[in-house]
Amino acid sequence: MSSNDVKLVRFGIMGCAGIARKVSRAITLSPNATLYAISSRSFEKAQQFAIKNGLPNSVKLYGSYNELLDDDHVDVVYMPLPTSLHVKWATLAAERKKHVLLEKPTALCVADLDVILEACEANGVQFMDGSMWYHHPRTGKMKELLDDSKLFGQVKNINSSSSFIAPEGFFENDIRVKPDLDALGALGDAGWYCLGAILWAMNQKLPTTVTALPAIERNAAGVIMSCSASFHWEEDGTIATFYCSFYAHETMDLATSCSNGTMHFHDFIIPFQEQSARFSYTSDAKFADLHVGWNMKPQEVELASPLPQEAMMIQEFARLVENIRSGVGKPDSKWPQTSRATQLVLDAVRTSIELGFQPVRIFDQMEYGWTNLNVDGAVAGT
Amino acid sequence: MSSNDVKLVRFGIMGCAGIARKVSRAITLSPNATLYAISSRSFEKAQQFAIKNGLPNSVKLYGSYNELLDDDHVDVVYMPLPTSLHVKWATLAAERKKHVLLEKPTALCVADLDVILEACEANGVQFMDGSMWYHHPRTGKMKELLDDSKLFGQVKNINSSSSFIAPEGFFENDIRVKPDLDALGALGDAGWYCLGAILWAMNQKLPTTVTALPAIERNAAGVIMSCSASFHWEEDGTIATFYCSFYAHETMDLATSCSNGTMHFHDFIIPFQEQSARFSYTSDAKFADLHVGWNMKPQEVELASPLPQEAMMIQEFARLVENIRSGVGKPDSKWPQTSRATQLVLDAVRTSIELGFQPVRIFDQMEYGWTNLNVDGAVAGT
Repeated sequence: MSSNDVKLVRFGIMGCAGIARKVSRAITLSPNATLYAISSRSFEKAQQFAIKNGLPNSVKLYGSYNELLDDDHVDVVYMPLPTSLHVKWATLAAERKKHVLLEKPTALCVADLDVILEACEANGVQFMDGSMWYHHPRTGKMKELLDDSKLFGQVKNINSSSSFIAPEGFFENDIRVKPDLDALGALGDAGWYCLGAILWAMNQKLPTTVTALPAIERNAAGVIMSCSASFHWEEDGTIATFYCSFYAHETMDLATSCSNGTMHFHDFIIPFQEQSARFSYTSDAKFADLHVGWNMKPQEVELASPLPQEAMMIQEFARLVENIRSGVGKPDSKWPQTSRATQLVLDAVRTSIELGFQPVRIFDQMEYGWTNLNVDGAVAGT
Repeated sequence: MSSNDVKLVRFGIMGCAGIARKVSRAITLSPNATLYAISSRSFEKAQQFAIKNGLPNSVKLYGSYNELLDDDHVDVVYMPLPTSLHVKWATLAAERKKHVLLEKPTALCVADLDVILEACEANGVQFMDGSMWYHHPRTGKMKELLDDSKLFGQVKNINSSSSFIAPEGFFENDIRVKPDLDALGALGDAGWYCLGAILWAMNQKLPTTVTALPAIERNAAGVIMSCSASFHWEEDGTIATFYCSFYAHETMDLATSCSNGTMHFHDFIIPFQEQSARFSYTSDAKFADLHVGWNMKPQEVELASPLPQEAMMIQEFARLVENIRSGVGKPDSKWPQTSRATQLVLDAVRTSIELGFQPVRIFDQMEYGWTNLNVDGAVAGT
């Protein structure tokens, strides 16, 4: 290890899922991070991953997850394991003082996530989920504009969709169709982004009620392949809807309508191209006389990305870790809170589906351990 | 009247609402139509309208609707009256053998519309509602592409929204906020387009169930200012959602996700500019290796419009009328059927709202007089 490397935050990857390829590249590209080790259920799998991705010989290879946790040089564990394994391994990682970058969906339910978050909090380690799009400069620019009350005003309606045509073999082999691995299926995978995007537009304010829409597709094992839901913020009169699917063509839409403006983009999860990304918005538009046109066209904004968004995620995570390590800062609660709000709303969607598309009222105060997901009207005195 | 004019289809306007300004210009621009007469509740109002819009002296002015119907030279009545007056006047017009171009929403409920449609059918006159966007060349091009099963495949998800910030005085004076004039409020006005767009994408196939979303805003008189709903086609697993509002910034969105492609436009009701309009689509897109981008960007298509879309509507209507008049054709059932499907779904949204956002099952066979809107499960034996 060179003296330069000492300052870099050392990442260990736990599990060699497909997404780990993208994130290992991101770690390599991030200026304040280094890919220190990878671990799999067998040494051979770790080795195959290293060869396939051209990793340098300096990257340590471990044939078990415990070996990775036993290595005191590992600062961060990036964990792309099946969701059903998250509670066990994320908690163990936190207890070994590893910062936790956890692939989404974070857990099978918010109660499980709370176990993880409590472990992170108790051990003073940073938590973040692997949603990359939050870290693109475009996302920050959009948020800056959306929060400008003169430009946009109050959010009134949000629609998001995330879908893709599953590649060959997906429906037979992918963990996202297996009830014992990723039981949340398309809702936990493609849907996670939509839920996050809706909450992002609402500055993480939880909806009052969540109602799944009466259309759901499951595979033979009962895992959700396609679903949608609506979200209502009673106080604001705001409504949001989303659709996620493994059965529809690639979409990554987020449309936000406010009292004074609208914003659109169609590649919010993965930008069409890596170097830069666009969005469009309209503010204070009027129809021309006789309503034969508009007095303006949508404004197109393009934002360059100095690094791929996933590398910016790694960079931000490593920055937080370095701050904690050097005593400058404490774990940033923004990221666990963002994950938790998303997981909470995801739970509500699932509950609504299980209850036959009944509205589910959310009484959560964003305090760990005080989660009440209840069917509308089912809780006395609330 | 010159000999040239004899071939032109003669339009009479019944009522001088704001939208009549746009349509009177459209009639003037249409090569096969002529603005023959306008009528209002008083001669002075008709005169004011003529002066304000610079109409030539040849246009006849009538101080009552009956005078317009009494004029045998009138081929077509364009009727921008408040919705509550549609049944009476559209029926009377049909009985006087006038072809009927009726402003949307067509009626307060489908039973009322059926009275109008039956009168049109019995009298052999053409019916069409005033939805202009169907007539833009862009719409036709999009439909052609959407119907290409290789390009798009099966429709999976549709989202549409239509909203505008009401101009000054709107909430006090506009007919669209008055329970005795346009009791359907934003649902009948802005919402009509969304419902039509969703059905357009589905080739007029009616959804199995309609469920209003638990967010609705009404004015003090109880008229809907903002609402949304979901639509489910059980057989196809297709889901659609829409949002309409008088309280949100100008939006005119239609997003269609199919099994093999997606299509977007953000100005579907009124194109940003009159001369040409755009849409974008993606077909058979894949993510790049490592999911760091897409293998293509959306394709942008621009369609020039030889005439404003409202003039193309007039031109099409006049063409149908001329065909009927000359014995070449009969009334085209496509247009009344399109209006009726839209009205039927609108009724279902309203019913679902009234039932506290319960799903409403549609058992309609598109036969006039056989309309059953029922709450899910409420009908024995179905």
